[in-house]
Formats: sequence, C-alpha cells, structure tokens
Amino acid sequence: MTGANESSRLLVRGIAQLASPAGTHAPLRERSLGEVDVLEDAYVLCEDGLVAAVGPMRELPKLDGDVEDLDARGMCAIPGLVDCHTHACFGGDRVEEFSLRAAGAGYEELHAAGGGILSTVRATREAGHEGLREAVRRHRGWMLAAGTTTFEAKSGYGLDREHEIASLEAIRDEGGIATFLGPHAVPPELDDADEYVDFLLAEVVPEAARVAEAADVFVERGAFDVEQARRYLWACGEAGLVLRLHGDQFTELGAVPLAVEIGARSVDHLEATGEAGISILAASGVVGVLLPASALFLDRPMPQARSMVEAGAAIALATDFNPGSSFCESLPIVCSLACTQLHLSPAEALSACTVNAAYVLGRADRAGRVAPGYTADLVLLDAPDWRYLPYHLAGPVVGAVVQGGRVAWRR
Amino acid sequence: MTGANESSRLLVRGIAQLASPAGTHAPLRERSLGEVDVLEDAYVLCEDGLVAAVGPMRELPKLDGDVEDLDARGMCAIPGLVDCHTHACFGGDRVEEFSLRAAGAGYEELHAAGGGILSTVRATREAGHEGLREAVRRHRGWMLAAGTTTFEAKSGYGLDREHEIASLEAIRDEGGIATFLGPHAVPPELDDADEYVDFLLAEVVPEAARVAEAADVFVERGAFDVEQARRYLWACGEAGLVLRLHGDQFTELGAVPLAVEIGARSVDHLEATGEAGISILAASGVVGVLLPASALFLDRPMPQARSMVEAGAAIALATDFNPGSSFCESLPIVCSLACTQLHLSPAEALSACTVNAAYVLGRADRAGRVAPGYTADLVLLDAPDWRYLPYHLAGPVVGAVVQGGRVAWRR
Repeated sequence: MTGANESSRLLVRGIAQLASPAGTHAPLRERSLGEVDVLEDAYVLCEDGLVAAVGPMRELPKLDGDVEDLDARGMCAIPGLVDCHTHACFGGDRVEEFSLRAAGAGYEELHAAGGGILSTVRATREAGHEGLREAVRRHRGWMLAAGTTTFEAKSGYGLDREHEIASLEAIRDEGGIATFLGPHAVPPELDDADEYVDFLLAEVVPEAARVAEAADVFVERGAFDVEQARRYLWACGEAGLVLRLHGDQFTELGAVPLAVEIGARSVDHLEATGEAGISILAASGVVGVLLPASALFLDRPMPQARSMVEAGAAIALATDFNPGSSFCESLPIVCSLACTQLHLSPAEALSACTVNAAYVLGRADRAGRVAPGYTADLVLLDAPDWRYLPYHLAGPVVGAVVQGGRVAWRR
Repeated sequence: MTGANESSRLLVRGIAQLASPAGTHAPLRERSLGEVDVLEDAYVLCEDGLVAAVGPMRELPKLDGDVEDLDARGMCAIPGLVDCHTHACFGGDRVEEFSLRAAGAGYEELHAAGGGILSTVRATREAGHEGLREAVRRHRGWMLAAGTTTFEAKSGYGLDREHEIASLEAIRDEGGIATFLGPHAVPPELDDADEYVDFLLAEVVPEAARVAEAADVFVERGAFDVEQARRYLWACGEAGLVLRLHGDQFTELGAVPLAVEIGARSVDHLEATGEAGISILAASGVVGVLLPASALFLDRPMPQARSMVEAGAAIALATDFNPGSSFCESLPIVCSLACTQLHLSPAEALSACTVNAAYVLGRADRAGRVAPGYTADLVLLDAPDWRYLPYHLAGPVVGAVVQGGRVAWRR
C-alpha cells in the first residue's frame, strides 16, 4: 500500500466470469460453503492496494486521472488463493526418500530409519539464515505462480532455538504468516519429548511469540501426545499466539477434542478422523484444515470431507507444502483433488482455500474475497469458466496474478 | 529437419543430470524398465533435428562452425515425453459434468443422462473443420509446455464419416499421430452398435486408414463388446492399421485376451484387470497403457501396475487427455501419480512415458531416448535432480523444451 495517488489504480476489465465466495461472514459452513457469486463481463477497480469497486462492465463509471488497464477478456477471475498450511521454510529436498517410498517403503519406516523430518532438520540447520530466506523466497515465487497471494509457513525443521527463530524470521521477512511449530519432532540431540517441550517453553516460546502469529504441534505416535500438546499450547496461548494442531494424520490420538478444549483456531490433516471426531469438530468453532495433496503423496486415505461439511464442520483446504509428504505448492491441484477425491463441488473447494483459509489466518476481513475493502489480490484464469481451476488437472490455468493491486505475476 | 547446414546445430551444455532410459531395445520390461542412465555435467549436441552426440562436458570436442548454445547449468534433462493415448481433438468442454460429478453423480449415470461422450460429440460436430484444427493446436501447445514432444490423438467424437475424417486430418496436420477410434460410442442417430460397426467398416475405415496409423475401439458395457471389437479390428488390420483397444476400464469383458489374439500393439486403461488378465498380458507382446490421471479424475481404482511389471508385462503411461474423464495433458503429473499411486519408481515412470510409449506409437527407434540418431527432443527441468519430474507434484518443473533440435518452448 503506497498511499493515495492516481498511479496506484488498476482497472481489470472485461472479466468473463468473476467468482468470489458469497456473503461476508467466515468461516463458511454447510450450504454457504458452496455459494459463490459469479458476475459475468465484470470489472474490478483496485486503488491503493485495495479493491475499490466491483461490478458489471455496463455499470463501469467514468474514471478520471491515471488508471492502469488490464484487459481480462476471455479470462476468469477468482480471489487470490490463501494457503493456510505450509512448511515452506526448509533446506534440501527429500527426492531420494520419495524414490524409496515409490519402491515400497512406508513414511513411518523412513522416519524411523533416520530419513523423514530429521533429514530435513539437518539440511535446514546447514542452510544458514540467508539460505533459509532464499528458500522461502523461491517457494513463495512458486506459490505466486500457482495463484497463492497469502501464505502461512511453519517453523519446525530447526528444532533448536537458533534455527526455529531464524525460520520464523525468514518466513515473516519474505511476506509469509509465521507459525511456530517447535514441537514438530523431537530433535536428534534429545531423547525425550517432555524434555524438549520444557526446553521450548523456557527458551524459545517467548521470542517465537514476537515473530509468529500462531503456534502448532504435531500430535502423532512418535511425535507428541495430547498431554504434551496441551501443555505446550496452553503456554503459547498465554504468550498471545493463535493455537493450531496437526491431528489425526495417521492415528486418532485425541487432537480434535483437545483443539476444542483449548479453543484452537484449526486442527489440520484429519485423514484418520472418524464419526465421533467429525461430530465434535462440527459442534465447535475449530476449522478442519484438509490437505489432500499430502494424502495423495503418501498414498493414504483421504479425509472424510463430505461428511465433515454435511455434519456442519467448517473446513479449509491447504497444500501442506513440505519436502517429505507434499512437495506441492499448488492450490489449483488441491482444488482438483478436493473435487475428485474429497467430493467437494468446485464452489466449496474455492471457498475452502480462499475465505475459510483466510479465517484460519485471522485475515477473513482482508483476504479470500474480491469485494470492496478487501486487499486487491486476484487470480486471472486462462479459461472460459472459473471452474477450470479444479477441472483442468495440472493445466496452465493461472494466467496472471494481481497482488495488492499490482500485477505480480504473468504466465 | 532442414537438411545439413551449420546453423541447425544446437549445443545443450552443462546439464546437471541427463537421464535417459538404458539400453536400446523396446518395450522395456521387468528390471530393465527401471534402468535409466544418468550422466552428470553432460552435453547434448543436436544436428539437423537429430541427436548427434551425448557425453560428459569434459569430453566435449571442439566444434567448428556455427553452433547455437543453450546453457543448461543447474538444470536436468530427460527425453521429450511421449503421450501415446490422448483424445485431444474435441469441441467444447465438460466442466459442468465435472461439477455434477464432484457433487456425486457417476460417470456411467452422466453418460446415460445424455452427458458423457455424446455431449462432446455434439460440440465436436459444431466446431467445424477449422475449429477442430484450432482445438488440436491449442492442446498441442499445452502438451508441449508440459514436456510432451510426441503425441498421439484419437478421433471418436465425430461418430460420422465427415467428422471422424476431419478429426484425423486435424490431428495429423497439427503434428499428432492419428488413431481412428470410430467405435468410441454409438452415435445418437443409430440405435445399434452392430449397425454402427457395419457403417464404419463400409464407409469410414478405407479413408481413415489413409490418415491414421492405428485403430482403436472402446470395449465396455454400453459401448462395444468383444465380438464387435474383433470384427472391427480385424478389418482395420487388413487395411494396414496398427491395432489398439480401450479395455477393462470399468469391467473385464475380455479385451486383454482379444488384444493378444489379434496381435494388438496395446490395450489401454486396465483399471479393472485382475490376476488372470495380468498373466495373459505378461505372456504377450501387447503393451498395457496405464492412465492414472483418468482413474484419479473419476475416483476409480488405480490399475495394478506393480503386479503387471512384476509379472513381466510391458507397460506405458499416458494422460488419456480428454474433456470428460481426464482433462489433463500433463505427463509430469502422470509420473507423480505413477510413483505415489501405481508404486512405480521414478525411473520406471520415465521409461513408461518415453521409450515404451514411443514403442506403442511405432517410434521406438526415434523417440523416447536422448541418444545419437534419435530425434533431438529433450525436456530441460528447472530442478537439481531429474526425479523432481514426479517429485514436484504439479510444480513448475519443465523449464524448456527442445523439439527436433530447436528450442520450442521456454518457461
């Protein structure tokens, strides 16, 4: 946002279809999740980084002064996508592990064999502060090209004070929303999860809370149990952080009830969540963040998204971008998977990775809709129908991305 | 190929990893399917559209005369991808049907309700000859950007003499390898599959055989049975066409035994093929063409690829690009699905959509390898390891595409 001057106006004109989640509240649930307003032959006027006006071309007012024009005839537009769950700050890759897994090794096996998260911890510590910044910058560029204009990223590959804080700073400084995931795994130099949680609370949380907006914990066999998660999250809440959990990825250990008990903003993964967990989630204010690219990558069962929506739960979609279990920064393919594997409609998928994801990140008043007062983030699709976003599987659908009222990327 | 002159030389230099299927035979089976030669810090010299030499940079000879240089430092290279099963010649789209299916309708239900293939038949007939050419051109451009330098496409959305022949001509004229798929569905103006096969044999096959290289038939409940397929393929073989079949997509009706009986080049889909069919396939010279993007798109079981490879069957991978059941022209994502869903290694996946796919198209001596004498088709990957091709799910991995010794596409 550069202050009010004429040259910061952008008029996107002649948009074949402008699709934006209906209403003004968030998170959207049940029927409202699938309600998307579609305006044909539309314009969007951006001023000083915000959406100033939206309407049909025939009602476009005469504009005085300098306005940059963007001709979007033959294209559709949707809100800039919001990725509310990534691990985009890491060194190295896990392509060797990917290849081994393709040949039959399981995720937990690879983890136990010293691969998995700990191999990324080594590479992350080796990357250095500038290396981590470069990594986030590169990944942010990939996300932008896939239509993501707002992203969250977690620490969790440092597992010591220096590299956890350096990760959070790299994320924040490169434009991301930082989440402190100290308890992602027990670091190699410690044996005991309780001892590590003690260390985090005493030595890292106070500083992490100055950089991050939220705290997260991996509740899973071989990672952290519910009691450790409760203790950690309680302290993080006291430090002013929004609370989130990785839960029910492989096993139901009680992450969903804990999320409700402590008033978490979200509980993420939920591939293993059964009927009881879905009922508890649906009766709560906690958003279920679903990560179908991760389930695909690991060839695991998909979360029961349809049942969650029908039970009344609020859901969001995200990539889970990370080197081990989802080397995928593309929300368009997540939307494809949402339609084909999670049985969500294109409209439900769109709402789940725009307005509901923005709610998870505390930005539902600014991001996830193309409407006056919202940040001027939109994706122009090289397609005759906005639903090509999920329909054109892995296709070149994203044609241009407007971020804060400026064309930030073009194919 | 422009004849021997100095200006048609291209030197691709400094390739971090050049990966190309090992050996010289095709199709590759069993262990040899997963054998890929990887050369580090390599060069590829292209002359007059062909690969003239390949080697490590330290052995690069001094080159006299004009040579265009392509700096590939930091990139990897693989052979141009070969898509041996697409339906890239069609009018319209099926985005509405995609949305209905996401909300719960089944493929066969939608077909029975007048959606499905017949809705594309209407749009294809309406597109006109030039419209079909434009469609193939647009789709070919998408394929090229995804790394595909050799593609097959089928007719099968005309279902009358004029539009079947127009489709084949559009495919051939736009650089594709044309397959006549007259028996894709019974056209709306006829009631009876036998009557339609009679018509095809009498009125269309002779002319189709002058444009197409192969014939194909959809063996399935509600389409064509084995007896109709046998009669059709027998006549097409007499007319000089290579024989292929769509088989076992939803139900095992005997397509695999028929493929072996008539000496087909391939039998494609095989999602429903069980142990007996796999044994028959493995003991034959017929290639099983697997289409995991289609299984994903329709949320159907994946073909038993691992069992097929272990039984000794030759397999290839393709996109099945079409508007209804796989709106996906990306072989990179097919490779991702091959690794995560079909349990193939990255090397097996690469061989399956290069040299083995080239074999299906009768071009194993020219396409699918980066080796002297082969067409100079290669894909440069913006990645530090060639296995990012499947690893980076839906990522911007394809950096540039060389086709016939020329840079045909760059990101």
